[in-house]
Amino acid sequence: MQLPAVDIITLADIEKAAALLCGAIVRTPLLASPALSALTGADVHVKYENMQATGSFKERGALVKLSALTAQERRRGVIAMSAGNHAQAVAYHAKRLGIPATIVMPQTTPLVKVENTRSHGAEVVLDGETVSESAVRARSIAAEKGLVFIHPYDDPAIMAGQGTIALEMLADDPALDCLVIPIGGGGLCSGMAVAAKTLKPEIEIIGVEAALYPSFHNALTGEERPIGGPTLAEGIAVKTVGQLTLPIVRALVGEMLTVDEAALESAVNAYATLQHSMAEGAGAAGLAALLAYPERFRGRRVGLVLCGGNIDARLLASVMVRALERADRIVSFRITASDRPGILGQIASRLGELGANILEVSHGRLFLDVPAKGVSIDLTIETRDAEHSRRVLEALAADGLAPTRVDARSRAEQDRGP
Amino acid sequence: MQLPAVDIITLADIEKAAALLCGAIVRTPLLASPALSALTGADVHVKYENMQATGSFKERGALVKLSALTAQERRRGVIAMSAGNHAQAVAYHAKRLGIPATIVMPQTTPLVKVENTRSHGAEVVLDGETVSESAVRARSIAAEKGLVFIHPYDDPAIMAGQGTIALEMLADDPALDCLVIPIGGGGLCSGMAVAAKTLKPEIEIIGVEAALYPSFHNALTGEERPIGGPTLAEGIAVKTVGQLTLPIVRALVGEMLTVDEAALESAVNAYATLQHSMAEGAGAAGLAALLAYPERFRGRRVGLVLCGGNIDARLLASVMVRALERADRIVSFRITASDRPGILGQIASRLGELGANILEVSHGRLFLDVPAKGVSIDLTIETRDAEHSRRVLEALAADGLAPTRVDARSRAEQDRGP
Repeated sequence: MQLPAVDIITLADIEKAAALLCGAIVRTPLLASPALSALTGADVHVKYENMQATGSFKERGALVKLSALTAQERRRGVIAMSAGNHAQAVAYHAKRLGIPATIVMPQTTPLVKVENTRSHGAEVVLDGETVSESAVRARSIAAEKGLVFIHPYDDPAIMAGQGTIALEMLADDPALDCLVIPIGGGGLCSGMAVAAKTLKPEIEIIGVEAALYPSFHNALTGEERPIGGPTLAEGIAVKTVGQLTLPIVRALVGEMLTVDEAALESAVNAYATLQHSMAEGAGAAGLAALLAYPERFRGRRVGLVLCGGNIDARLLASVMVRALERADRIVSFRITASDRPGILGQIASRLGELGANILEVSHGRLFLDVPAKGVSIDLTIETRDAEHSRRVLEALAADGLAPTRVDARSRAEQDRGP
Repeated sequence: MQLPAVDIITLADIEKAAALLCGAIVRTPLLASPALSALTGADVHVKYENMQATGSFKERGALVKLSALTAQERRRGVIAMSAGNHAQAVAYHAKRLGIPATIVMPQTTPLVKVENTRSHGAEVVLDGETVSESAVRARSIAAEKGLVFIHPYDDPAIMAGQGTIALEMLADDPALDCLVIPIGGGGLCSGMAVAAKTLKPEIEIIGVEAALYPSFHNALTGEERPIGGPTLAEGIAVKTVGQLTLPIVRALVGEMLTVDEAALESAVNAYATLQHSMAEGAGAAGLAALLAYPERFRGRRVGLVLCGGNIDARLLASVMVRALERADRIVSFRITASDRPGILGQIASRLGELGANILEVSHGRLFLDVPAKGVSIDLTIETRDAEHSRRVLEALAADGLAPTRVDARSRAEQDRGP
């Protein structure tokens, strides 16, 4: 099939990339998920790119790009700018190939990510408040030292590398009729679209953006939705779409969907609780789209790319606890009572009788809104379901303990931190 | 090959089971893990049984057993006793086949597991303080109502079902020279041993028990090590080995290793941080053995079964945080100072300058061991590594703030709860 915009990359480039990657990265599985199918109403098949050695698909493009360097370029080394998966991917494969790598990261990058990147042997330069400021620094070091700058997405070698995912998915399941792909700068989506639409023109390609970063939506429609803000999907929080990726996306992607933070959280939680697999926000964006637009995908044979699994353990736990809070299976409330001995024991025993599990207790006398001889007890309990929670609170009220609900979500919001 | 003890189950039984399971459960992947290989020194290949619909391998045996029932037995229904994966596996496949299922669980079973089992359509009976007491109740209901009791391991159909894992592993990688298998009652290990040793007599089979539950070790050696206590690997915390599984294990398993709680935690953490996959304690026992006995496995091509992924989110987060604490990348300490305005701000700013990230602060004046005009500030910080932590504490000491380390592990121990 002759595709529009094929002059940037072609199926042949992607097949060449696949041959090069063979044996050097993990051949990740594509697995049917009965549990996610039951949850979404679609026939869901997941490509587990979070099983790559550095936890994301970024290794594909990075390795293809590194392999294309001349001997002289390899000796001088490479530089990349990234706070996340691209950094680890470049560092990991540069080390494998014996190429010196420098990674510029924003000063605000979490220490765990800095250390992961260092542990792959890269020299890490912390500079800039934002990714854009780090990029300026990276370009300047590249020019000064003659290093090859490895762009995270706007490079034909990178795009061809990421496109190999679609080859593997269609080889494993030629019957897929729709691919739902997280999109930030567009490297993954454009590469996969070229491969999939060439092999199977009738397949539908859907891009998924975080609602806070609708960069492709704006670029494709001419709308000017605001861009920015803290998102769980920082891996696709991109303000500027690729120059090379945009024409391919415009030509081959059937629809661009946006997903809000609640859908992203639900998807991360679903991967963890139903698949026992850790997805970062961007990695779960495809599933988030199925949750947000179920009618769009009902009954269809959908391929999702779980493209990254690098999520902080505490953040994941917080997302999972919030999901229980949303379902009213974890409930927080305050009891204000006169401060007599045994009050806490009475409440705790009563909760035990009612079958509720106490997760947290905070017992204080110093709050200004509590009478001087009063006590305020904040409790968080776990119950069987929303109905059980309702009955527990009613029983406490009938005992004269007058529980008032505390907004668990705003509390959890604080737990998430800045 | 003619094996000893083959009269209980044979390769033919396991191949029949495999044909029956085909399409009804997930064909889970066996994947090489460069990251776990680098960590352990072995050539590690992981079978991801945590990707089954209910998160564990138990579906295999359960479905083989359910499929073997007569039409009359199916109408009357089945009963099982389990607080964990066996319960969900029986409930899930009984529902699929239209067989009524009753599951007896100890009264202390976590609510999430009770609800998961109910959500698969089973009738849940909460009875007994322990699994043994629940088993008595299950047997009595079975007799009273004419239900088929589905044993979690001591049944040839169950053993044959679990054995199919070894068929798949050797089909995917015939070069494996060692299988390291978590062992509780012995259903998984005996089934896999029969399949693997028949197909490849030179392969070595290693069983792994939690050190707190050395039931097979005792049964095989005649030792009487104590059995019991709270373990992260509750899925293999079995006090009585199977009558049918023991002779097979005795004949075919090359060595029985035990792993302590620290190794189990490290293994759960490694699966989460290096593979982005959630393993429960029992599911990670094989990897724990590689971490505990690296010389035993160095350079060998080892197949691990990540046999279950049902771990509570908060428990997983706690395990991951404890690992950072063990590496001195999360450090807790107390500063006792005179209570002047701005002291907290001074400390926080200093930590920022030093590049440490504050995770928790607790600021109190009510402790008896603090002078009346003093203040005690407990801080938990995250640093780049142990050396960085040391430098941060030295800098605070040089400022006259005299930090004293608080034992993070004993604090985390409390977090784990009962």
